[in-house]
Amino acid sequence: MSLQETVLNTVRATHDAAADAAALPMTTKEKVLRDVARKLREGSSFLQEENRKDLEEATEKGLSAAMLDRLTLSDKVIEQTASGLEEIAEFPDSVGEITRMWTRPNGMRVGRMRIPLGVIGIIYESRPNVTADAAGLCLKAGNAVILRGGSEAINSNKAIVNLFKDGLRENGVNKDVVNLLPTTDREAILHMLQLEDLIDLIIPRGGEELIRFVAANSRIPVIKHYKGVCHLYVDAAADLDMALKLTLNSKVQRPGVCNALETLLVHKSMAEDFLSIAAAELEAAGVELRGCERSRAIASSMKKATEDDWYAEYLDLILAVRVVDDIDEAIRHIAKYGSLHTESIVTKDYAASQKFLKEVNSSSVIVNASTRMSDGYVYGLGAEIGISTTKIHSFGPMGAEDLTTTKFIVLGDGQIRE
Amino acid sequence: MSLQETVLNTVRATHDAAADAAALPMTTKEKVLRDVARKLREGSSFLQEENRKDLEEATEKGLSAAMLDRLTLSDKVIEQTASGLEEIAEFPDSVGEITRMWTRPNGMRVGRMRIPLGVIGIIYESRPNVTADAAGLCLKAGNAVILRGGSEAINSNKAIVNLFKDGLRENGVNKDVVNLLPTTDREAILHMLQLEDLIDLIIPRGGEELIRFVAANSRIPVIKHYKGVCHLYVDAAADLDMALKLTLNSKVQRPGVCNALETLLVHKSMAEDFLSIAAAELEAAGVELRGCERSRAIASSMKKATEDDWYAEYLDLILAVRVVDDIDEAIRHIAKYGSLHTESIVTKDYAASQKFLKEVNSSSVIVNASTRMSDGYVYGLGAEIGISTTKIHSFGPMGAEDLTTTKFIVLGDGQIRE
Repeated sequence: MSLQETVLNTVRATHDAAADAAALPMTTKEKVLRDVARKLREGSSFLQEENRKDLEEATEKGLSAAMLDRLTLSDKVIEQTASGLEEIAEFPDSVGEITRMWTRPNGMRVGRMRIPLGVIGIIYESRPNVTADAAGLCLKAGNAVILRGGSEAINSNKAIVNLFKDGLRENGVNKDVVNLLPTTDREAILHMLQLEDLIDLIIPRGGEELIRFVAANSRIPVIKHYKGVCHLYVDAAADLDMALKLTLNSKVQRPGVCNALETLLVHKSMAEDFLSIAAAELEAAGVELRGCERSRAIASSMKKATEDDWYAEYLDLILAVRVVDDIDEAIRHIAKYGSLHTESIVTKDYAASQKFLKEVNSSSVIVNASTRMSDGYVYGLGAEIGISTTKIHSFGPMGAEDLTTTKFIVLGDGQIRE
Repeated sequence: MSLQETVLNTVRATHDAAADAAALPMTTKEKVLRDVARKLREGSSFLQEENRKDLEEATEKGLSAAMLDRLTLSDKVIEQTASGLEEIAEFPDSVGEITRMWTRPNGMRVGRMRIPLGVIGIIYESRPNVTADAAGLCLKAGNAVILRGGSEAINSNKAIVNLFKDGLRENGVNKDVVNLLPTTDREAILHMLQLEDLIDLIIPRGGEELIRFVAANSRIPVIKHYKGVCHLYVDAAADLDMALKLTLNSKVQRPGVCNALETLLVHKSMAEDFLSIAAAELEAAGVELRGCERSRAIASSMKKATEDDWYAEYLDLILAVRVVDDIDEAIRHIAKYGSLHTESIVTKDYAASQKFLKEVNSSSVIVNASTRMSDGYVYGLGAEIGISTTKIHSFGPMGAEDLTTTKFIVLGDGQIRE
């Protein structure tokens, strides 16, 4: 069988299971999720055996320690993955929800009812726990899912998908509701991305290179998450202690993730008081600062920021710092250099908070909290399949509800068009 | 200047106006829409002069009478277009609406606020009134819009866009909020469809060929409306008179449009009573019937339906007819042959109505009303920019609200990630 046929067969089987997935009662979906969570825990030694094969091969190939760490199914990761599925199970099921209903002058009632999207394709890299998270969220929203994980995690991914299939089968559900593409050939992604009649949505999870590759080659709609150049703006009316606390947390609590702070903007009237302390605290925490001229006049230890620094997603202990004349300049800076991910303002001033909320159109706009709060779990979405930084269909952290759409329903009593 | 530069310049100017469009107060948007409506009425003789140039050229080129009719800006069309803009003005403005807000255990409040999409590209064919409808809806939702109309309507389109620009300018609004691509070269569409960093969404309006061309060549998300193979299912428990009335209206009131009925499904226990009358009434209205064996046994005047007939979007006075054993067979027929557009059930039975509403996942699912009711105006969306038959972002008739997205807003008092 050719690679193309292999891909087509798996995707077609998934597509043919989509109606079954959509019709599942919520109790069945919850039961499957809890059963798979139990299977993950009970089967942890088998999972770790399979994972060891991947780790050995990865070690031979000379993968970095960070990559090996992401690939490892430790006891802790397995427990987190299992309890993640239980959290998804507990979260309200939005399929079938009538989000609105209104009456027309002719007496006809019109409403919008939430339904699954159909078939979702997830293309991701090395973390095998994504396999369980993604499959669980798609199932919760009544979708069938076709997973294409990284080649380095193939044994781990197969083992996890088999646990899902056991859970589906034991509850009388079509096992093709969750499928793993049986080949890790990169060419297979290209074949998959042509099947617009069989897959409704593609979500790539991974580095920018993977996402751009998928977006450039897909005939299926893609939800993209390019990067997070997140800003924190310390307003003229900021509480100094809160500004320090939020800056530190946004930058250093976990610098390698997309909602970590990359550029700090400070109102000129706060610059002296705030930056003199903040620079010392950030540097004490190991952060390299790259400032504009006015910042460096206050904290001379800062390196000089270049134009490139304002665009940079460091994902590291580096922070760009700029003093601005007012909130308008801060908002313009964010519009020009930002990536539509997450921006936060620290202020005690009501008007400034409202202006920032209204005029900054990033996917998360935050008043008086850390940029690190922009996250599906923290927001209470039950889980997160990714963070969209493009505006079509979904914008920001995506939970199960973002894997649905709405259809119109009409309740009439004989209405016709005149 | 090359064609590519011409396209890029116009699109970039539109993109640079998007922040202005997004920040417009609702009163300004309403004022512009009402002013343009007035200008359309007052400038009707000028519009019709420009329109006459298009009509003369189209006549020379030998366009069909139907095409000429679609191209004509009659007094009636101008009045409808003007009052259409006034209706859009009156409709509630959803930009800034907080659709939900909830509190997290850490005291942080999280909500979703409606914001414009940004820049919308509309690619359409011969009707010049689409120019005003589309620009009005995009403006209402706070978007900038780049229009690419058919070459045969270029003079009419230019005249309408200039009225819009006058209305924008007189109200102090950036005139690049509404732009027409200054060239009708088909190649220009290809250039436009590459500009994914400048345009957020493409909506093609026209025949299937145009839509497939756009979808196949776009790097920008496209909302597609392929076709409407609409079904009406006459259930075992249907009211006979209502079934007749809805069948006739769905098929003959305007057969050339996408929500017209194409296949009639009849429960076997109703077939004899219903089809003997319905066939005669439909034929009296000029409808050619193509039936399955069981239908033809009741109404022998029917032609024999082939497999192709079940897939057909006739857009004409032709109707496929099939007798089914039960509601499950009807639902399976719709799932197999339908186009996810609009399906209607006629029934007095509560359980059948609920089953149909739940299990049919087309963009409009109707109980006891004509398929012709699936329409943005009829549903009360204020207007309609198209009907999406794909599920991403929007599914079914799209009004101004479907040209928005939501961002997350967070109101904190110092929350950090632990």
